[in-house]
Amino acid sequence: MSTPAPIAYSFEPTRVGLARLGRIETPHGPIDTPQFMPVGTQATVKALTPGDLHEAGAQMILGNTYHLNLRPTAERIGRLGGLHRFMAWDGPILTDSGGFQVFSLADLRRVDDDGVTFTSHLDGSTHRLTPERAMEIQALLGSDVAMALDQLVDPGSGSDRVAEAMERTHRWAARSLAARGRPDQAVFGIVQGGVDPELRRASVAAIAALPFDGVAIGGLSVGESKAAMSATLDVVARALGDDPRPRYLMGVGSPADFFVAVERGMDLFDCVLPTRVARTGQVWTDAGRLNLRNAAFLDDPAPIDAACACAACRTHSRAYVAHLFRARELLAYRLATLHNVTWTLELMRRLRASLADGTYAALADRIGRAFARSELGV
Amino acid sequence: MSTPAPIAYSFEPTRVGLARLGRIETPHGPIDTPQFMPVGTQATVKALTPGDLHEAGAQMILGNTYHLNLRPTAERIGRLGGLHRFMAWDGPILTDSGGFQVFSLADLRRVDDDGVTFTSHLDGSTHRLTPERAMEIQALLGSDVAMALDQLVDPGSGSDRVAEAMERTHRWAARSLAARGRPDQAVFGIVQGGVDPELRRASVAAIAALPFDGVAIGGLSVGESKAAMSATLDVVARALGDDPRPRYLMGVGSPADFFVAVERGMDLFDCVLPTRVARTGQVWTDAGRLNLRNAAFLDDPAPIDAACACAACRTHSRAYVAHLFRARELLAYRLATLHNVTWTLELMRRLRASLADGTYAALADRIGRAFARSELGV
Repeated sequence: MSTPAPIAYSFEPTRVGLARLGRIETPHGPIDTPQFMPVGTQATVKALTPGDLHEAGAQMILGNTYHLNLRPTAERIGRLGGLHRFMAWDGPILTDSGGFQVFSLADLRRVDDDGVTFTSHLDGSTHRLTPERAMEIQALLGSDVAMALDQLVDPGSGSDRVAEAMERTHRWAARSLAARGRPDQAVFGIVQGGVDPELRRASVAAIAALPFDGVAIGGLSVGESKAAMSATLDVVARALGDDPRPRYLMGVGSPADFFVAVERGMDLFDCVLPTRVARTGQVWTDAGRLNLRNAAFLDDPAPIDAACACAACRTHSRAYVAHLFRARELLAYRLATLHNVTWTLELMRRLRASLADGTYAALADRIGRAFARSELGV
Repeated sequence: MSTPAPIAYSFEPTRVGLARLGRIETPHGPIDTPQFMPVGTQATVKALTPGDLHEAGAQMILGNTYHLNLRPTAERIGRLGGLHRFMAWDGPILTDSGGFQVFSLADLRRVDDDGVTFTSHLDGSTHRLTPERAMEIQALLGSDVAMALDQLVDPGSGSDRVAEAMERTHRWAARSLAARGRPDQAVFGIVQGGVDPELRRASVAAIAALPFDGVAIGGLSVGESKAAMSATLDVVARALGDDPRPRYLMGVGSPADFFVAVERGMDLFDCVLPTRVARTGQVWTDAGRLNLRNAAFLDDPAPIDAACACAACRTHSRAYVAHLFRARELLAYRLATLHNVTWTLELMRRLRASLADGTYAALADRIGRAFARSELGV
């Protein structure tokens, strides 16, 4: 008898492009897809409690291996019973491999075929990350879904470098799978290849050939144009064909981008955007972005979004939250974050409903127009 | 027929010194005394929502006239429906007069008998505060209890200066009363006089002779010794005799100080101490202060205080909150603040219960020992 799979899933096609409606069952509960995962970088979605996240409708959240391994360390979280217990989140957790942060945050990195050596952005200490260590860390964290270690390069750094990093990513993918440590943890592989269609097709072929529990698409939403992102997703979608596994588009979380990606068959998303912009005073509504630092809001008795059910909108006015931002009060960051996470998760719920009831085009048009200006403008 | 009083109150003597158990009815609900008021300086008890405050057991909170009048301004809060609506707190609110902050925070102040001119610590703009303006601001804020404007001086600045400020405070008290603007707002006068028994007796006589709804004791907990504070409270208590009105000791909020003051007949307290120290990682328990920045807590799976019912203690470990402090995560400040406010309000509830059931001495001894070292050590 074979070991039961750590996750189970099913996806149904819809009448909207390649969009699909699905459900993923994990050791810590189900996920309805398409779904957005709020990011809890340092074992907390900034300013929010697990109770807030449940109330906001979160099903799965993301933890960052790079940050957690530097502080408080994976070994410490392991001794304390794993990441779920440590942060008191009883729902599903996906951890990344640490690769993205090593290649974007850390200083003085040196990549070889075995792994990457880097110095911590916190204290300059030297660390080593290999596919095997990335899996060991994630086993200690005990996430429901672990990610294989990949190598990220700037898609504009030339085909040779992109190809080299992609091929290393494929070798690391196989080693990550071989190093999987626990039967209750799914492992997703990561497709790379920049914005080059040939490389993307090759990467899908290499990653999809491995017995991963899911397929992630990395290296997008890193500065390329909207057109390049959607063209690349078209290539990936065609290459994946009828592959039955969950598809996770890494690092995407702007409202209009969800629609572009869902139509191309993507199921899961994560991004710091809704939480990061919230802390600058930018809140999201069906009318688009509002910047609560604008003086006009100081006299506005309306809630941030009258249609939103979050505690910030049920309880407080724009005038009050705008005051809190000017006074640099901690409650400002909390209320704006709670709203943006709630609104984003509710948008995904509405998106799923619209796929089921035929109103998808109207919703996509409405959100696309509202967020058309300065998309990804943080 | 006379106008109904804005507040009603009754106090019962106990077997413990001059300690009394009481209840104050305000336009926004009752207050059981002795009671502690968390401080919401800028229309927020830092990091907490009104819902958190209710859950923590708060009955009355304090707002700061100085800060609110500079930003977002009293006129703006008035247009938005008053401070209760603005901050969405439906319980009683006490506002101070602004005097304390003018004399401790503002720059370039110039006092004359009519009032005080000062420049804002925010932007250097010039402002004028008089007894009449302090009452006007508080009428716009719409607090349940307004404070008369007083002049604070360093108690160590010499008897002549202390006496002069006290006499001005008495003249301003009468003007504040004459300027009271709304029938649904109580006004408390403030006894000054430093740590000089003669001056304190004179100040009690002057303030208690006026038809205030309550009597506050100002100018303590500003650096004088513990012995000087309790001796001064003895003087004030004797001078007040059987005056039936609520007695509010301003600026006191350290655990052991509550007992010293309650035994001397004080009913109400406020202080930023529990919230301010929380944001540095200092949490309060029956075992005394814990500093969550100590490395030992990084591996401690116990809650901050196993006996505490706050969401931080019900949900999270010391290890987790200690990690959040090291990572400078917003949630650290929120959880520690929630705990300290909950613990302090629960201490007041236990203090009231102990006055009723004869266990006061044991509680006072326990808390006094736990917090004996470096009292007021922030």
